Amino acid sequence: MKRIFISLLIVCSISSASAQLDRARSKIKSKTIHSNVLNTGRNYNIYLPISYDLNPNKRYPILYLLHGLNGTNKDWFERGHLKDVADQLIAGGEACEMIIVSPDAGGNIPEEWNGYFNMPGWNYETFFFTEFVPHIESEYRVIGNKANRAIAGLSMGGGGSTQYAQRYSSMFSSVYAMSALMSIPEGNSTVTTNPNSKMEILNNSVIENSCIDFVKNASDTKKEELRSIVWYVDCGDDDFLIDRNIEFYQVMRAAQIPLQFRVRDGGHTWEYWHSALYTCLPFIARNFKNR
Amino acid sequence: MKRIFISLLIVCSISSASAQLDRARSKIKSKTIHSNVLNTGRNYNIYLPISYDLNPNKRYPILYLLHGLNGTNKDWFERGHLKDVADQLIAGGEACEMIIVSPDAGGNIPEEWNGYFNMPGWNYETFFFTEFVPHIESEYRVIGNKANRAIAGLSMGGGGSTQYAQRYSSMFSSVYAMSALMSIPEGNSTVTTNPNSKMEILNNSVIENSCIDFVKNASDTKKEELRSIVWYVDCGDDDFLIDRNIEFYQVMRAAQIPLQFRVRDGGHTWEYWHSALYTCLPFIARNFKNR
Amino acid sequence: MKRIFISLLIVCSISSASAQLDRARSKIKSKTIHSNVLNTGRNYNIYLPISYDLNPNKRYPILYLLHGLNGTNKDWFERGHLKDVADQLIAGGEACEMIIVSPDAGGNIPEEWNGYFNMPGWNYETFFFTEFVPHIESEYRVIGNKANRAIAGLSMGGGGSTQYAQRYSSMFSSVYAMSALMSIPEGNSTVTTNPNSKMEILNNSVIENSCIDFVKNASDTKKEELRSIVWYVDCGDDDFLIDRNIEFYQVMRAAQIPLQFRVRDGGHTWEYWHSALYTCLPFIARNFKNR
Amino acid sequence: MKRIFISLLIVCSISSASAQLDRARSKIKSKTIHSNVLNTGRNYNIYLPISYDLNPNKRYPILYLLHGLNGTNKDWFERGHLKDVADQLIAGGEACEMIIVSPDAGGNIPEEWNGYFNMPGWNYETFFFTEFVPHIESEYRVIGNKANRAIAGLSMGGGGSTQYAQRYSSMFSSVYAMSALMSIPEGNSTVTTNPNSKMEILNNSVIENSCIDFVKNASDTKKEELRSIVWYVDCGDDDFLIDRNIEFYQVMRAAQIPLQFRVRDGGHTWEYWHSALYTCLPFIARNFKNR
Repeated sequence: MKRIFISLLIVCSISSASAQLDRARSKIKSKTIHSNVLNTGRNYNIYLPISYDLNPNKRYPILYLLHGLNGTNKDWFERGHLKDVADQLIAGGEACEMIIVSPDAGGNIPEEWNGYFNMPGWNYETFFFTEFVPHIESEYRVIGNKANRAIAGLSMGGGGSTQYAQRYSSMFSSVYAMSALMSIPEGNSTVTTNPNSKMEILNNSVIENSCIDFVKNASDTKKEELRSIVWYVDCGDDDFLIDRNIEFYQVMRAAQIPLQFRVRDGGHTWEYWHSALYTCLPFIARNFKNR
Repeated sequence: MKRIFISLLIVCSISSASAQLDRARSKIKSKTIHSNVLNTGRNYNIYLPISYDLNPNKRYPILYLLHGLNGTNKDWFERGHLKDVADQLIAGGEACEMIIVSPDAGGNIPEEWNGYFNMPGWNYETFFFTEFVPHIESEYRVIGNKANRAIAGLSMGGGGSTQYAQRYSSMFSSVYAMSALMSIPEGNSTVTTNPNSKMEILNNSVIENSCIDFVKNASDTKKEELRSIVWYVDCGDDDFLIDRNIEFYQVMRAAQIPLQFRVRDGGHTWEYWHSALYTCLPFIARNFKNR
Repeated sequence: MKRIFISLLIVCSISSASAQLDRARSKIKSKTIHSNVLNTGRNYNIYLPISYDLNPNKRYPILYLLHGLNGTNKDWFERGHLKDVADQLIAGGEACEMIIVSPDAGGNIPEEWNGYFNMPGWNYETFFFTEFVPHIESEYRVIGNKANRAIAGLSMGGGGSTQYAQRYSSMFSSVYAMSALMSIPEGNSTVTTNPNSKMEILNNSVIENSCIDFVKNASDTKKEELRSIVWYVDCGDDDFLIDRNIEFYQVMRAAQIPLQFRVRDGGHTWEYWHSALYTCLPFIARNFKNR
Repeated sequence: MKRIFISLLIVCSISSASAQLDRARSKIKSKTIHSNVLNTGRNYNIYLPISYDLNPNKRYPILYLLHGLNGTNKDWFERGHLKDVADQLIAGGEACEMIIVSPDAGGNIPEEWNGYFNMPGWNYETFFFTEFVPHIESEYRVIGNKANRAIAGLSMGGGGSTQYAQRYSSMFSSVYAMSALMSIPEGNSTVTTNPNSKMEILNNSVIENSCIDFVKNASDTKKEELRSIVWYVDCGDDDFLIDRNIEFYQVMRAAQIPLQFRVRDGGHTWEYWHSALYTCLPFIARNFKNR
């Protein structure tokens, strides 16, 4: 009888959120870093794999995972279930252990600054490369080279990760862009100048940082640098950003820069991005070179 | 400029929870039904497909979707993202429109009654078949026959749906059992008798309602009835309930009752059950006969 | 000992091509039909599902499955392993029983006539609709209405099935186009006039039967008719025909004709088409209306 | 006009077997090795990846891929379409470049010797490890260590690869067993002694080399060695060998030797094994350690 009762308690405890107290587990931390560039604190969430605490000398590859417009550092963890997905893929051997970090680049529109680029009054990109990355890679046991650093993101964060890798191509081994805002959908290049609207300022920054134009205008040297990165673009057939993703795929092909391109069923939704993690993390992992 | 601004607002609004106000949408309702059998109110959540309000005379097939131990009617909707999955599969044509309902058969252990079977002091099964199903199928526009009624569930709800379909085989066209509690893991048949412990009472009810023993003991007539149902059993290779699911598969095969059996990567987790919905709903849909 | 020996013989016999003599099986037949239109015999291969011989009064839905340039009626059966795929999907419940037929519209270039359209001296389309379809649907137990007739194909046959469904939209319930020759890749509309080259004549017919232009030029009435068909377009990201498939997807979307669009990994290869069958047959099946 | 004509010729040439003459390509070779152990020649087929001829100093990881009963070295290449699958997975980045070799261990029953183990009069295992592997790894540019050597196979070859890895655990980094003959299905341990029947002799060898008993009887040291290999077992729910694969999974779990276990839809068929390659090659690749 005791055995039965214990059995069902196992069912219970495994079903509950507080399960598996006795096993080594991956961890999520929510932290804040003060930015001198932005003159404010910025939050981030970070995933540390199971062995992180067990092997205090081991260093890990890292994935920077960017959220979308109107979102924050919590999105990938709360709605994207990042920890659950990463745990399963690592346990099943489909991805290697890695650190995954998502910084806050948004929040409620129009009150909050949204965007990954430098904008008048909000130099987020400068913050990202001169403060955030150095902080993370010294605070946590990150290997810290191109071969073991990757970037990915959804929507505005898909455009952000693509453009970051385009301009800082010596820093990233691979990019996985989901439903990416490769440029403004309508293709209009007019720049607005209302200095009071964070949305308009963001708008301008996206126009100025078109991932498509970047490839079109790339020199042969830059194209060769872009070939040092492994690219993956994933966008739903019902996504309102699909045409710009197609255009990106076509200019990359014309520039003879290899990339994987996928159109799956779906729209601009969390179901799409969550399922993309199952492709993204193995892709990122197999393009790390430390394995 | 106006066009650009509008474009980015579209990004924003689609990303936000309040999007798509102008389109017909599926709905989730949270309701309570009073049970005379249980002498208390019981909550349920129900999914109504897009056309439900548009076609006021149309009737729909229905799926009863059961939660697990320690869970409630909200689980499939909150952590299982049922609405998002159903919307996508229906939009993509992989599942037909259907009503999906999940009743509360649990809550915090050990305070709350958990379980789908009749137990001393808690005749849940009687409630389900004499009060809940009749209520749902008169309150909503359900077709209401075997050919258009299915049942599925996870863990304790996987065992519940299997056993319900076994005993009420004239009511269901198909069953999809995920990580199912086909019986108590250890295989111990001892029955405990502490009338004060809801957990022990549940324990006994699971032993007495073993889905495996049911097949072993089935008469030829009953076996023939079980063949009128299409069966699907799906359990992870890291699930602590896998051996009992294997045993169920083997006794079904021995009894020559066709079933689909799958072992995928994963454990007793929401990632497993969420991904199972992508197989479950198309399976359920193609076994409805009204299409 | 006898039991062991028998066991291994089972391994042997199941592994061998001549296995399963005692079970009802699906069948492939190779036949020839004389065409007055073409003034020659044309071969076809046909798949008859397991129950075909067992239920002599049952009628079946039908899929017309078209091969590509330089191919023949044998391709889907020999390299596409159509019988094996159909048998598995039907056994697993993912597709319903159906008849599948593939007519010869090609062979060695430049000796043989290739193509699905009417060309000077070779009215294949006339043959298909006035001789082939009527012959098949009287010779075999085909249901024979739009709701239970579908068409699919690869490359030249993907363009053929799309164009056939566009012009004969009252005949087909669904279309699955793989790596389709939606028009000539370069987009050149010049028509050549060498009456001696079968390749040039085919070339002209593909230009004249552009699936993309068809949608662009469709009247509102025709667009409404096209909406009565369920469309699926599937093309690899390394396929040299991908841009025309993208263009087709975009004009269909602009015309507000729903279609499923997928870009998977791969090129213009049999691995792509064979794997497409696993999506195609369930898609075709769930859009038949007799189920 | 010239452009159009060229376009369609591209369609043609790409569709044809003689396409892509101008690109580097992977190669298949069919060779024969003389065996002193077996006192006869044995054929093998070998896949060499695209870069093999281009980089004359590069060394590669290797996969030994075993066929089933009644089969030969040609099976994986002719019905398994190994070259097409490997080319696609390597091009898409899902598997790294590797050499894949399949030796002949069978042919028509009962005339030919079938089997991977040492049998009275036919010491195939001795041939494999003392003649075949050394020959291949000196004749081709193989890295030649455990970290870069893997083994996989179907049915009799699934049992062969499992048992080989069990006994020579210092040689292989990973194993992928498909529909494996883990032991004789009926579980009968009687050994027959007719020295004239190759089938009975094979039968005995399979009984004596039970992969299940091997784990049950393994010492703690051996179990630890088995943990140095990454294991994957993949078997269809309609396969007549499924119960022995389940038993293997259960004894491995009891011995606390991690393995991936999957049950997918299907039987003992080439559709199953062909589709398994899409899981097998990425699995093998990510467990090579030279990447």
